[in-house]
Amino acid sequence: MAVYTALGPEQVSALLARYDVGELMALKGIAEGVENSNFFVETTKSKYILTLYENRVDPADLPFFYSLLKHLHDAGCKVPRFIADCDGQWLQEIAGRPACLIEFLQGVSVTTPTPAQTRSTGTALGQMHAALTGFRETRPNSLGVTAWRPLAESCTAAGLESIQSGLAERIADECIFVETHWPHNLPRSAIHADLFPDNVLMLGSNVTGLIDFYFACTDATGYDLAIAHSAWCFSNDGGSFDAGLSVALLAGYASAFPIDVPTRDAFATLLRGACLRFLLTRCYDWINTPANALVTRKDPLAFLRRLDFYSDDANIARIMGQLH
Amino acid sequence: MAVYTALGPEQVSALLARYDVGELMALKGIAEGVENSNFFVETTKSKYILTLYENRVDPADLPFFYSLLKHLHDAGCKVPRFIADCDGQWLQEIAGRPACLIEFLQGVSVTTPTPAQTRSTGTALGQMHAALTGFRETRPNSLGVTAWRPLAESCTAAGLESIQSGLAERIADECIFVETHWPHNLPRSAIHADLFPDNVLMLGSNVTGLIDFYFACTDATGYDLAIAHSAWCFSNDGGSFDAGLSVALLAGYASAFPIDVPTRDAFATLLRGACLRFLLTRCYDWINTPANALVTRKDPLAFLRRLDFYSDDANIARIMGQLH
Repeated sequence: MAVYTALGPEQVSALLARYDVGELMALKGIAEGVENSNFFVETTKSKYILTLYENRVDPADLPFFYSLLKHLHDAGCKVPRFIADCDGQWLQEIAGRPACLIEFLQGVSVTTPTPAQTRSTGTALGQMHAALTGFRETRPNSLGVTAWRPLAESCTAAGLESIQSGLAERIADECIFVETHWPHNLPRSAIHADLFPDNVLMLGSNVTGLIDFYFACTDATGYDLAIAHSAWCFSNDGGSFDAGLSVALLAGYASAFPIDVPTRDAFATLLRGACLRFLLTRCYDWINTPANALVTRKDPLAFLRRLDFYSDDANIARIMGQLH
Repeated sequence: MAVYTALGPEQVSALLARYDVGELMALKGIAEGVENSNFFVETTKSKYILTLYENRVDPADLPFFYSLLKHLHDAGCKVPRFIADCDGQWLQEIAGRPACLIEFLQGVSVTTPTPAQTRSTGTALGQMHAALTGFRETRPNSLGVTAWRPLAESCTAAGLESIQSGLAERIADECIFVETHWPHNLPRSAIHADLFPDNVLMLGSNVTGLIDFYFACTDATGYDLAIAHSAWCFSNDGGSFDAGLSVALLAGYASAFPIDVPTRDAFATLLRGACLRFLLTRCYDWINTPANALVTRKDPLAFLRRLDFYSDDANIARIMGQLH
């Protein structure tokens, strides 16, 4: 949530001169997305987001993201395209950083989703998975099931205990559970892997854009749905599950992309895995980010509470009942 | 350069419902201005800036800023107006903070001004002073000449010495100089008091907006010109004076607002006072802001170098030669 690299209009105008996008009219650093520098750019022709990739995004992954968004856009999904300059180049350099000019999409990211908004999000996610059945490019999931145990170890038991007593053992047990039960026979494709409300633009109850694909990778579509379920169906602190939002998300998704039997059978494990992934990355960031740093630390325990919820058979039975 | 308060679209839509501005279409936290939280707001009708006032702006000063901007706008100056809601209220509350919806002006803040851009800025400042001769509301300058000695003392000699050896004595001497020579017979009006390139929006060489009036106060117009001179006519680090920019700024200003004899006679002192003001507030911030804090600390020595330049009689003679 911060602009890391300062950028003058002189630099931006020089960049825009390579494109057929008109003259620079406004330039504002904006707080958006993962750890990139983002600028709102208005020209005489249209509006754009200019993204400068800082350390967290590997430039070698950008062609995958470009192809993915082009494929989704061509299939009619609402995602922002990377804009190519007059020579067909979409990857640029500015201020010594890889940079892309990206379509600006209207819409806002809701903070307290309604059932109608959650249903629309489920539908958009299902449509995305349907559109990706023909997409052949792949990117390994560096934060997938095999990454969780090493991530827990890099947090160290002492670090985890400093967040909450007993957390190290709980996470170790959960790693064993998900590694033992993780399904390897599920339909896979490119997935968003981070579909929180922050990353969905809406006008009213309509989705106008899925954004921030920088965690997108190849993994089980059901895991993507599980991530969205953990992200959309709870209060922000994870303390309160909203069954109505859960029904809405799952029904919306299933209307666009059928939930196959192996995915359904594995859904409890996928949900627990989704919680473990965000619990662990939040623990890691919590332990390794000074409290007064530029980046706001997100509460890891909000995902421990979700994990507790999904570890209760009665709750899982309720969710499974909504899958039909 | 940061968004301090998080704001959801639900809150913003509820606020906008009081106005005749259409429906919310986009909401982005932006990095702009002094220590307020600023949001880019696009509606079905227009674009706005939503500003939430954090600690640094006293809500009791907002009526002065409102009147000042209304007066300037009505006089044809390019400044952003505070928008009133359907009941005529321009001061709102959101997320527990005083907040105002403000016109969005196109244009960008240049980082390396050209002579033509600097001349336009001088003209806009002169036009602003001309427009303010009839403006009767006042606000004391809390960072004026009488504030500098207490500000130096609150930095403490040890604090100043930690920035550069000899700085405490240099500042003490300079306080004596400006207090002794400060003119009290100059034309006064409301002044901007912070007209750095950051606070001027431009398209090409045309000024499209003077912004960020939150230091505006009642003081000598010549002091406002001196601040702009120190802000526009040097390299960012203060190490290099650009005589061409100085000619441009002063000629542009004089074309719109004549520089009277008492102001001309006192200009060397006003220039040194302007440097002392920014040197001192930057020293204070440097000493009192952790190096890793959210706010970027600005180099105090960039204004010590400007002060050195203006303390040299040969340099002042050169600038005085441009005042005719």
